[in-house]
Amino acid sequence: MIKIAIMGYGVVGSGLVELIDENREAKKCNEEIVITSILVRNKEKHKNKNHSEVLTTDIEEFFSKESDIVVEVMGEITKSLIYVKRALNLKKHVVTANKDLLAEYGEELFELANENGVALKFEASIGGGIPVIKSLIESLEGNNINSIKAILNGTTNFILTKMDKEKLSYEEALKEAQELGFAEANPEADVMGYDAARKLSLLSTLAFRKKVSWKNINIQGITEVESVDFDYADKINCKVKLLCISNNSDEGVYATVKPVLVENESVLAQINNEVNIVIFNGDSIGEIILIGKGAGKMPTGSAVYADVLDIVNKRFTKITAFKREEAKIIENLQGECSAVLRIENSKEQDIIKKCANEFTFIQVLQTQIEGETGVLVKANSEIEIDRFIDGLLANSYVKSIKKIIKID
Amino acid sequence: MIKIAIMGYGVVGSGLVELIDENREAKKCNEEIVITSILVRNKEKHKNKNHSEVLTTDIEEFFSKESDIVVEVMGEITKSLIYVKRALNLKKHVVTANKDLLAEYGEELFELANENGVALKFEASIGGGIPVIKSLIESLEGNNINSIKAILNGTTNFILTKMDKEKLSYEEALKEAQELGFAEANPEADVMGYDAARKLSLLSTLAFRKKVSWKNINIQGITEVESVDFDYADKINCKVKLLCISNNSDEGVYATVKPVLVENESVLAQINNEVNIVIFNGDSIGEIILIGKGAGKMPTGSAVYADVLDIVNKRFTKITAFKREEAKIIENLQGECSAVLRIENSKEQDIIKKCANEFTFIQVLQTQIEGETGVLVKANSEIEIDRFIDGLLANSYVKSIKKIIKID
Ligand SMILES: NC(=O)c1ccc[n+]([C@@H]2O[C@H](COP(=O)([O-])OP(=O)(O)OC[C@H]3O[C@@H](n4cnc5c(N)ncnc54)[C@H](OP(=O)(O)O)[C@@H]3O)[C@@H](O)[C@H]2O)c1
Ligand SMILES: NC(=O)c1ccc[n+]([C@@H]2O[C@H](COP(=O)([O-])OP(=O)(O)OC[C@H]3O[C@@H](n4cnc5c(N)ncnc54)[C@H](OP(=O)(O)O)[C@@H]3O)[C@@H](O)[C@H]2O)c1
Repeated sequence: MIKIAIMGYGVVGSGLVELIDENREAKKCNEEIVITSILVRNKEKHKNKNHSEVLTTDIEEFFSKESDIVVEVMGEITKSLIYVKRALNLKKHVVTANKDLLAEYGEELFELANENGVALKFEASIGGGIPVIKSLIESLEGNNINSIKAILNGTTNFILTKMDKEKLSYEEALKEAQELGFAEANPEADVMGYDAARKLSLLSTLAFRKKVSWKNINIQGITEVESVDFDYADKINCKVKLLCISNNSDEGVYATVKPVLVENESVLAQINNEVNIVIFNGDSIGEIILIGKGAGKMPTGSAVYADVLDIVNKRFTKITAFKREEAKIIENLQGECSAVLRIENSKEQDIIKKCANEFTFIQVLQTQIEGETGVLVKANSEIEIDRFIDGLLANSYVKSIKKIIKID
Repeated sequence: MIKIAIMGYGVVGSGLVELIDENREAKKCNEEIVITSILVRNKEKHKNKNHSEVLTTDIEEFFSKESDIVVEVMGEITKSLIYVKRALNLKKHVVTANKDLLAEYGEELFELANENGVALKFEASIGGGIPVIKSLIESLEGNNINSIKAILNGTTNFILTKMDKEKLSYEEALKEAQELGFAEANPEADVMGYDAARKLSLLSTLAFRKKVSWKNINIQGITEVESVDFDYADKINCKVKLLCISNNSDEGVYATVKPVLVENESVLAQINNEVNIVIFNGDSIGEIILIGKGAGKMPTGSAVYADVLDIVNKRFTKITAFKREEAKIIENLQGECSAVLRIENSKEQDIIKKCANEFTFIQVLQTQIEGETGVLVKANSEIEIDRFIDGLLANSYVKSIKKIIKID
């Protein structure tokens, strides 16, 4: 028998409890999993659910109950940090779905888990139900990972999908996401790209075996994406996606979260709504792509349950990546770069001539927008494009330039 | 220190040895992995490779060397079966990449492994480098899997990709695949769909927790696929793929390997050349998609190496699915079904009228082929379409009918 105590009985907690109960009844687990305590803020809310007899709002009572595993699915950072540390120090295995906690305190927490000889598992914290972490740290362990490309935030992917397929404005799409429960009342962490960046930092740290702090990631959210960006994308057979990119090399790590163009005939372009995708490129294995629901009660519950089963079955993998040195950060994308430039100007012919002189390839993209010239350009590097933009902006007939890069 | 003895030093064996050596040098594994013996047929062929001092052609000498893990990457069945059983009986953990062996003798071998308290691991046997098995039996363990859709044979996918993109005939594409080493001199197991069916049987058995023997799978290879099938596919925005499908329900299991139409805007349609894909549908997790290289020295070597590391790190998962009852097999796809019918006939107007009367939806697809009527039809079930075909064939003005179903 394995005893489990759970902090949080919300979306993810309820999914987990359902799976524990279902699988216990179906006798699918070789050990019986018993829930000894569930911590919430408000017992009243949960009094009609299963296991209401073990509900508590008192952390002392919670820790007074026996447990082999503590699951943290309550979210936020301040209290979670205190409680998770306490659990680890009590030599309990911990399972969490809390990427915010790990992105801030991963180093300290994994160290503490290792010192206490217990597991700290977190499959659900990235990509919901997708087995991203296990694949990376167990199946790809023999590889050196060269790069990661991913869509890790369901809310923004939902908004971009709506803007594309239903021609909604950003505001309309955000509102719909909120009404459907995909976006929170305060959507900042999602739409500004912070949530995706925290997940990318965790994945990059694990994959590259050097620390990539989320605050060092170059982040651009989707708040500036406009309907017309989708028109430009259409003209060059692309879609707009909020992509997490991180590349590892001897020189350092390039890591960014930003809206980019992906080709219609790519797998990335097929990832719609709340679906997530992670693409690892390993030196032996080549490209491995994992796709699935990035959030939701049962998908996320399933990932937490899988972590619990790993502990029940004593399948342990030690995490040491977080105590490594901070990676050197490279600012610009290396290698050839294509981008759409939206140039607000009053001398279109001059602009086009300048582009044609500068770049190996250009394609003028006609739109209905007065005073805006849209051009797809290809250069030897992103820096080259940025320098060109800076140069153009020095001219009084150029008002503003918006760049969106295209990823192969 | 962990001692490992390897049977086979070909494509996969060489990849594995390279990874063991590389990772040992980089000190990335917490235990040193030492290769104590390598079994081959012809020592001369391998004398300039690393570890030539432990080569042997003599199975007695092979088993006389100490080992904790025996890796079987020599292929074929007769000898592998004897050697793998011997290793298991000696209480050695076994890692194999041999789907043929497991599709025939899985029940006996997993039973033997369980009796001897050792692991029998086989990640590389399905989908090459993709972590298919681990995801299924560890990460999705809490789920009931409802269905599997997959492209599991690189050779046939390569041929179909060439036929589509370069307008090659089947024979030309097969020849190119052989020249590039993607297809064997005797390509039967691949092009007839047997290899894919063996893999589907293993996956279905594990996923549905009932035995699905490969001989019970409805198999149709790609030898009858013609260039014109791609023209029809094009007209309805589809691609032709050799798909493995298996659906589980209370009534039984529907399992098939056959060429089908998949929509251009699906992930399946983006899977080209030697790439493999597996889509699991779980009751909690929804759709999980895994994509990667299905074969090749390093991708496959990486999967074998991951199995070895699981054993080194004592991460064990007991396999019991193969000793379950044989699943009841359902012959036809349940639910709504669309298909393209290629009807060789001499009374086109009659044919079209009959189709229109029979089906809820039809679309006539024009081609250049004289005497052939192409129609996309939609029916309430596949059986309904099959009955209609049988009825039509009773008419003397209908010479032949070819059906290719479309998958959503
Ligand atoms: N939802 C998803 O799809 C998803 C996906 C991946 C990861 N996650 C992560 O999983 C975690 C949980 O998310 P969720 O969506 O399940 O949240 P939620 O629905 O808001 O549930 C949070 C639960 O924790 C309890 N709780 C919160 N703060 C507490 C405190 N200080 N003391 C005691 N109990 C407290 C709440 O109690 P009351 O019920 O009494 O208010 C509630 O039961 C978060 O870290 C989130 O980022 C969620
Ligand atoms: N190749 C792939 O990409 C791939 C992918 C997934 C799974 N697999 C599976 O992996 C296994 C190995 O495939 P492979 O491509 O590596 O084959 P391979 O290149 O033909 O190598 C086979 C090796 O086994 C040795 N061998 C064969 N029969 C033997 C016997 N009776 N006694 C002693 N040694 C014997 C051969 O010895 P000699 O060198 O002396 O001839 C050779 O070293 C097969 O089960 C295959 O289905 C392969």
